[in-house]
Amino acid sequence: MAEEAAVRAQAEAVRRLKQDKADPDEIAKEVTKLLEMKARLGGDEGKHKFVLKTPKGTRDYSPKQMAIRERVFNAIITCFKRHGAEVIDTPVFELKETLTGKYGEDSKLIYDLKDQGGELLSLRYDLTVPFARYLAMNKITNIKRYHIAKVYRRDNPAMTRGRYREFYQCDFDIAGQFDPMIPDAECLKIVHEILSDLQLGDFLIKMPWEEVRSEMVGEKGLSPEAADRIGEYVQLHGGLDLIERLLQDPKLSQNKLAKEGLGDMKLLFEYLTLFGITGKVSFDLSLARGLDYYTGVIYEAVLLQQENDHVEDPVSVGSVAGGGRYDGLVGMFDPKGRKVPCVGVSIGIERIFSILEQRVEASEEKIRTTETQVLVASAQKKLLEERLKLISELWDAGVKAEVLYKKNPKLLNQLQYCEDTGIPLVAIVGEQELKDGVVKLRVVATREEVNVRRESLVEEIRMRTSRP
Amino acid sequence: MAEEAAVRAQAEAVRRLKQDKADPDEIAKEVTKLLEMKARLGGDEGKHKFVLKTPKGTRDYSPKQMAIRERVFNAIITCFKRHGAEVIDTPVFELKETLTGKYGEDSKLIYDLKDQGGELLSLRYDLTVPFARYLAMNKITNIKRYHIAKVYRRDNPAMTRGRYREFYQCDFDIAGQFDPMIPDAECLKIVHEILSDLQLGDFLIKMPWEEVRSEMVGEKGLSPEAADRIGEYVQLHGGLDLIERLLQDPKLSQNKLAKEGLGDMKLLFEYLTLFGITGKVSFDLSLARGLDYYTGVIYEAVLLQQENDHVEDPVSVGSVAGGGRYDGLVGMFDPKGRKVPCVGVSIGIERIFSILEQRVEASEEKIRTTETQVLVASAQKKLLEERLKLISELWDAGVKAEVLYKKNPKLLNQLQYCEDTGIPLVAIVGEQELKDGVVKLRVVATREEVNVRRESLVEEIRMRTSRP
Repeated sequence: MAEEAAVRAQAEAVRRLKQDKADPDEIAKEVTKLLEMKARLGGDEGKHKFVLKTPKGTRDYSPKQMAIRERVFNAIITCFKRHGAEVIDTPVFELKETLTGKYGEDSKLIYDLKDQGGELLSLRYDLTVPFARYLAMNKITNIKRYHIAKVYRRDNPAMTRGRYREFYQCDFDIAGQFDPMIPDAECLKIVHEILSDLQLGDFLIKMPWEEVRSEMVGEKGLSPEAADRIGEYVQLHGGLDLIERLLQDPKLSQNKLAKEGLGDMKLLFEYLTLFGITGKVSFDLSLARGLDYYTGVIYEAVLLQQENDHVEDPVSVGSVAGGGRYDGLVGMFDPKGRKVPCVGVSIGIERIFSILEQRVEASEEKIRTTETQVLVASAQKKLLEERLKLISELWDAGVKAEVLYKKNPKLLNQLQYCEDTGIPLVAIVGEQELKDGVVKLRVVATREEVNVRRESLVEEIRMRTSRP
Repeated sequence: MAEEAAVRAQAEAVRRLKQDKADPDEIAKEVTKLLEMKARLGGDEGKHKFVLKTPKGTRDYSPKQMAIRERVFNAIITCFKRHGAEVIDTPVFELKETLTGKYGEDSKLIYDLKDQGGELLSLRYDLTVPFARYLAMNKITNIKRYHIAKVYRRDNPAMTRGRYREFYQCDFDIAGQFDPMIPDAECLKIVHEILSDLQLGDFLIKMPWEEVRSEMVGEKGLSPEAADRIGEYVQLHGGLDLIERLLQDPKLSQNKLAKEGLGDMKLLFEYLTLFGITGKVSFDLSLARGLDYYTGVIYEAVLLQQENDHVEDPVSVGSVAGGGRYDGLVGMFDPKGRKVPCVGVSIGIERIFSILEQRVEASEEKIRTTETQVLVASAQKKLLEERLKLISELWDAGVKAEVLYKKNPKLLNQLQYCEDTGIPLVAIVGEQELKDGVVKLRVVATREEVNVRRESLVEEIRMRTSRP
């Protein structure tokens, strides 16, 4: 350790001399000293004890996991773009005060940065508060955007169930003053599309019955028992008919607030009917969201455990998306308190990802982690230069190609590499092929081999690897 | 503020009652109280003073900036995939000790997280050290991977010149025991391909002459003046010929280290010649990299300021990529010090992004921030339901479509929205069209209008918006 510190001190000395544009001789002398010290230190690196792990509640993504993750992201981004969303990005940390007073009790889960001088910072807890800060800061009153990024919560991790301290949120929000319930309905449509696209099995989008109930009990004077009976009925059959009947209830219809609430619900269900998704949307008695900023309709999508689930060790399912209306949040950032009505949805991909990962494990599906179309190979020795020349031609033509980093690799090893990584084609150069101006193209799956004229090789590879 | 705290306390009380599955009546009562308190608080939100900014050295990306950023990422990812790379991801923070002793003097620029109990954490400073940790932790001795993610440095920001405290790195690395200089040459080829693809103007990939020089001066005993004369020559004409001549120098060729170093350089330049990129690669006397972990060839790519640069306020250019060999880093994490040779390249996109952003600003190019193909519109009132029904059909068929969130928007406003956002088509529904089973499809650019049978609409939109 002492020696390492000495090396570092020496390196710093060299750096300083260079900065000061010192005499080249002097620099050379010091650099030499540094190199000697480094050489002496040599093999001693790596003797220290390190705890080899990622921080609690976090994980790395391996190439195979990344391949699954990218499938999920593609489905989600495709949906967000289909609905005309722009995309923004914000920093991973915010001023601490930006997050203050937005998350109630959950604020204790916020990661703070150490005070190293300067501003007090915290890692973002969600993407909604940074979005509101962005709108207020840029005086934007009208935007439809998505944002996919990691958020941070010092929660108790339960990683097998997809609960992490660092996890992705995929948010889609509509900000602006619009006619009621149209953007709200679109958000629910988006959740429906994404969960259908991902083929995760059956799901349900629940909206909390509770707020409607409290209006009826607290403000209208309906007995809690009666309200609960209605609630149970709603939970079982909740939809447009039910709302219509509640609206015709003489007791309820005299109450302005209850009527307004039910009127909004009716409008929402009418739009959901036009979107053909009422079958998967219902009220729920138990739903409550912890966040302070919601002001209107809120909802949560849950996956339903399938009875005929053949997975050995099923991931416990639960909430995979949530969202709602938060008309007051932007105003909390505006110096004059100007409000921008917002409604949005957040897809939590970690649970979705756990399910898909487990499904891939259980199936025979072999996931490719590269897109390489062709391996440039040779059967004979001393052809490294020819392989490099050919692969350079392929790269320059936009072909995805690899070569083994060996002077004289065995053909068998080269073919095995293709088997292992799923590369479909091998372009083989040999003395004879070079003389004839051809390349031998081998199809890994069928072992078929054809000689292709070198000038037609790119086209041949493209043809054979283009998806039908 | 006192009232807000009271609301929060009340919300917490409700939450606790629910958790404890308390009597529904009691919950209802408390919920009602909460709603009343919220109602009283009402319009008072937003009266607090917030500093509306992102943390020092960071920024948001607007939709337009994101569009440019995605172009850059696409070019880079396409190149990385063309070279057969897999992709991984690691957490944004690491255990503090993982980063300790890797960055020399620059360690003071590392962001630490506050000690909130549990592990001591730091934000990642680059992607190389997490990569080495990942390899050692998973005992991987052989991988070619890329990783694109944000890194964090408490440096003095100079944002107009593209220097940030939060910035992206795009890393491509090859780990494994291979024949010398083949992976190294591929890394330089990759830098060359990416900088060419992005059309950033002229560039040069510089390798430091300094280490070769120190070997000659320090170990061989060549006079510094002589070495510098060689160095100047190298800088001007550096390439294969020069290395050959140096190798034939009787003084140098007797020195084992110098000969080995020059031999490796010769091999590298031979491969670069096969890749056709020696024209952009040269030695540089001044180059020095601050990081401790490099062990062999290191390089840096710089953009060259063009003489005929018509940009009014040119971004000062500089290093846009760098990398090298770090054979010792993985061993520092391995309990037994087992080494995994690595070589890699890191593309710094912030400067590239600044240049492209400025170029877009200067040009007339209008960048679309959405991909919407069609706006579903109507000229008459009371057709919201019909618009929602049609757009739902289009979404379900995979068409990217938008609708204005107004009950009765004016046709002019709907057409203006298309002009503003670059939506190429408008699908117009009206009483007559509904009767006839058609939709009027309007091409925004030409104002051409055709009636399309409803069942052919999706195909017609696809045909008209598919890229040639």
